[in-house]
Amino acid sequence: MKLKNDLLLRTAKGEKVERPPVWLMRQAGRILPQYRAIRQSLSGFKELVQTPALAAEVTIQPVDELGVDAAILFSDILVIPESMGLNYELIEKKGPWFPKTITNANEVAALSSGAAAADNLEYVYEAIKICKTELAGRVPLIGFSGAPWTIFCYMIEGSGSKTFSKAKRFLYTQPEAAHALLQKITDSTIHYLQQKVNAGIDLVQVFDSWAGILSPAQYQVFAIPYIRQICDAIQGVPMTVFCKGAWFALEALDQLDCQVLGLDWNTQANFAKQKVTSNKVFQGNADPCLLYAPAKEIEQTVLSMIEDFGTGHIVNLGHGVYPDTPLDNVKTFVNTVKNFSY
Amino acid sequence: MKLKNDLLLRTAKGEKVERPPVWLMRQAGRILPQYRAIRQSLSGFKELVQTPALAAEVTIQPVDELGVDAAILFSDILVIPESMGLNYELIEKKGPWFPKTITNANEVAALSSGAAAADNLEYVYEAIKICKTELAGRVPLIGFSGAPWTIFCYMIEGSGSKTFSKAKRFLYTQPEAAHALLQKITDSTIHYLQQKVNAGIDLVQVFDSWAGILSPAQYQVFAIPYIRQICDAIQGVPMTVFCKGAWFALEALDQLDCQVLGLDWNTQANFAKQKVTSNKVFQGNADPCLLYAPAKEIEQTVLSMIEDFGTGHIVNLGHGVYPDTPLDNVKTFVNTVKNFSY
Repeated sequence: MKLKNDLLLRTAKGEKVERPPVWLMRQAGRILPQYRAIRQSLSGFKELVQTPALAAEVTIQPVDELGVDAAILFSDILVIPESMGLNYELIEKKGPWFPKTITNANEVAALSSGAAAADNLEYVYEAIKICKTELAGRVPLIGFSGAPWTIFCYMIEGSGSKTFSKAKRFLYTQPEAAHALLQKITDSTIHYLQQKVNAGIDLVQVFDSWAGILSPAQYQVFAIPYIRQICDAIQGVPMTVFCKGAWFALEALDQLDCQVLGLDWNTQANFAKQKVTSNKVFQGNADPCLLYAPAKEIEQTVLSMIEDFGTGHIVNLGHGVYPDTPLDNVKTFVNTVKNFSY
Repeated sequence: MKLKNDLLLRTAKGEKVERPPVWLMRQAGRILPQYRAIRQSLSGFKELVQTPALAAEVTIQPVDELGVDAAILFSDILVIPESMGLNYELIEKKGPWFPKTITNANEVAALSSGAAAADNLEYVYEAIKICKTELAGRVPLIGFSGAPWTIFCYMIEGSGSKTFSKAKRFLYTQPEAAHALLQKITDSTIHYLQQKVNAGIDLVQVFDSWAGILSPAQYQVFAIPYIRQICDAIQGVPMTVFCKGAWFALEALDQLDCQVLGLDWNTQANFAKQKVTSNKVFQGNADPCLLYAPAKEIEQTVLSMIEDFGTGHIVNLGHGVYPDTPLDNVKTFVNTVKNFSY
């Protein structure tokens, strides 16, 4: 089905466009009263992720309510470890928790991977098909995965962490097992993203949420090579790579076969342009807390960000929108972009 | 009293030295069995901070056990908010917690500040005097404070946070009250550090632990001006400014009247040297998790770090040493530096 609004895809492909497209990471979520109503009626977050009709419904809510230029499939990066055999739970107000974690090479060897893992995620592919039908071409549908290093962090730590020192310790003390695990995650992710594309995803985004806790040297060894494999494998749709905190690796990210680089709010446009010299499109990068500010400050900051990046820019925050963000401020953010023209 | 080992001070002053000095942030703490023994005998962390003879004892332990080139006075950055009227508790395994936090301008106005606040910290100045007597000139004594932005974060949030979105929201929604609070923290910190210097501190370090969560624009407005006031006010001893995650502000930090800039482990020597063109000395910046690695890898990484920085370098980690770090590995780190010569 031909898209009515293909601004995001034309921008990602480097075409000349009339204005930057806009969407928000975590736009399908707690900022919307419609989402909170559905969420409240369910036993937990995972029920929402695993029920295709519901996942599709919350995916489309922000398109209706905010008028953003893309939908992003409601899901979780932790479906991949689960597909590999490591179940997770989501503890309210605490975040993800894995009852069992990976501690050694034998446990790595016992994990599923590749197609065998990705085939366990039929509910995701089903949700994509429902979304595509219900969106009826209004906007493109983005699908995401975690980057291997970030998934690795959760599989070793078993939860979020201030320092991720257990995951990093594993890199220093068991480098071979670490590479084996990263490869299994990568293989699973490639099959997963390919099946998502087959189901109808229009653009893929890979999130390396914990990029910023690795040293530059370790990032080159334990993160970049696996992201590269994913970029090389997934063809046919544009790809965005967002490595939060990896300002020190922008030159390496510039070498990847992807169209868009996501930037966090610490990374200024002029710095990114110095480091990224191929014709990559940038996505980002307002401070999520800007959306607590008065409307006028939001408008001014968005317009000056658009000016700083110039063309080849997808407007977004530099991280997911925070759950307590006032909905009117999110609308101000979106509408400021939609009322702009180059 | 003349110092027997003044390597740290000569390096900080830009003199030519035979090898880089070495110490570790959080060296007085859980890595040492001597510390754990004392800590276990006490009711809590604050008893240790507030009892001068005990604070002095744990300050000197790493000098005896590790042979580092400096002692750092055992204390906590949160003594400043407490001196201003905001009590804190340290909850085991959870970190700091403030029963009362700051939510508006009236509450800011009600806080003590300046000399009135700093005069409440007599137990710190007393600990310094004991340390100086007991060290008997073996190594210099470092004293520290939090940077105003980091102290502000705790006073608004009341605890640690993944996003510090409450503290950042305060900047966006109540900028005048935010500046008033930052100024009060700054005034208190200046009096506090000056009294520490009067009591015998040989070098002062200011920690901006949460620098990295501000956007570059906000860092210039809400952080740098207050650190600058501290640098301008404290004279007579060298000063180190360590703004974790503030890679984007290195040019501004270069303009400060301080001798040493601390660097986190994401910031490579060649990047720092490009941005910092005055004759600042760098302190840092090994990944704390390197100390989980085999001895050979620790040695090689330390030597290559020393080579990358060249002269004008104080060896340290890029963050405080993690409590579960094996003591032998810390010794390998220290001894590798002590066996090196330029």
